[in-house]
Amino acid sequence: MTRPEPMQPAEPAGRRRGRRPAGEDTRGALLDAALAVFTEQGFDGATVRAIAGRAGVDAAMVNHWFGGKEGLFAAAMQIPVDPTALVDELLAGGIDGLGERIVRRFLGVWDASRGSALIGIVRSASSHEASARMMREFITRVLFGRLARQLEIDQPDLRAALCGSQIVGLAMVRYVIRLEPAASADPDTLAAAIGPTLQRYITGEL
Amino acid sequence: MTRPEPMQPAEPAGRRRGRRPAGEDTRGALLDAALAVFTEQGFDGATVRAIAGRAGVDAAMVNHWFGGKEGLFAAAMQIPVDPTALVDELLAGGIDGLGERIVRRFLGVWDASRGSALIGIVRSASSHEASARMMREFITRVLFGRLARQLEIDQPDLRAALCGSQIVGLAMVRYVIRLEPAASADPDTLAAAIGPTLQRYITGEL
Repeated sequence: MTRPEPMQPAEPAGRRRGRRPAGEDTRGALLDAALAVFTEQGFDGATVRAIAGRAGVDAAMVNHWFGGKEGLFAAAMQIPVDPTALVDELLAGGIDGLGERIVRRFLGVWDASRGSALIGIVRSASSHEASARMMREFITRVLFGRLARQLEIDQPDLRAALCGSQIVGLAMVRYVIRLEPAASADPDTLAAAIGPTLQRYITGEL
Repeated sequence: MTRPEPMQPAEPAGRRRGRRPAGEDTRGALLDAALAVFTEQGFDGATVRAIAGRAGVDAAMVNHWFGGKEGLFAAAMQIPVDPTALVDELLAGGIDGLGERIVRRFLGVWDASRGSALIGIVRSASSHEASARMMREFITRVLFGRLARQLEIDQPDLRAALCGSQIVGLAMVRYVIRLEPAASADPDTLAAAIGPTLQRYITGEL
């Protein structure tokens, strides 16, 4: 990890300093408020101030517990990783092999829970527009959007959507449809096969 | 189309010869039986004989109405195209540009209904193991499995799963998540961007 103290919503920093029931209440209130405000307003429309206001806590608590709006969004979507730190970490390795590193990192996050949170997100996104919108904005604004901006590449939105298509499709065949051999292949095999696809979507001619 | 008289489940051949209520009953009974037997037994386990038996009709009616087990499976899954004819048609154009032709053909089928049948399949597959199994077997056995067998390539199962991941992911971002610009991009743009991915999954080094 490139940042020693990023928020990991599944393991809140507060826990390391011992049980703090009041803090847990604050964190829980922020998660509830975030889910409501992100659902109503989308990622761009929702402000940290509005979420904190609805939760009845100070806006500084968002940074304290989630490292910022992106981390709060990821936590509200039950994504067990801080997306800002994730993108920084991926880019720290340089452009070469970026596609393979993305595949490995995603599999690392998802395999840990056998894709259980992801299955819920897919189920929800195929039934509710609000969930589809959250997934859409996570991919474009938070994850690949940030990656594209930092790399200063042309056609960032199309590249983000193409990366999203391959990553979401990988998640679908590995965890939801469970298509063999993709469902039980080791990460090395999948990174070698799918990494070059992401590499081309990010850096190649389209 | 390379076969002049393939079954197109959405437009059954019988209709061309005028309304046949009794025939429609037979077709409907076969669809109901097929859904039940494929769900219980999977694609490989289900036999035409067992499905016809459950529907109480002669097994020859499966060929008459659906062109065979693959066509019946596609119709039972509400896929508006005969997969056997589809693969033959795609291969008739040769290896060059096969990836782009696959993207165009899928978009042609799905765009016609704005992905509505597909959204139902995805929703169902993320909630029910039986639906996930049907989707799995459609991709491996019926679609890319047939393609891989006809091309006599190495690692056919892995290649089928990789193609499946990109095609399912394209469907997810275009119709379910509706990620722009993929959701409204013209088929040419998507075929140019995604075609080479499928081409590599089918014919390249993995």
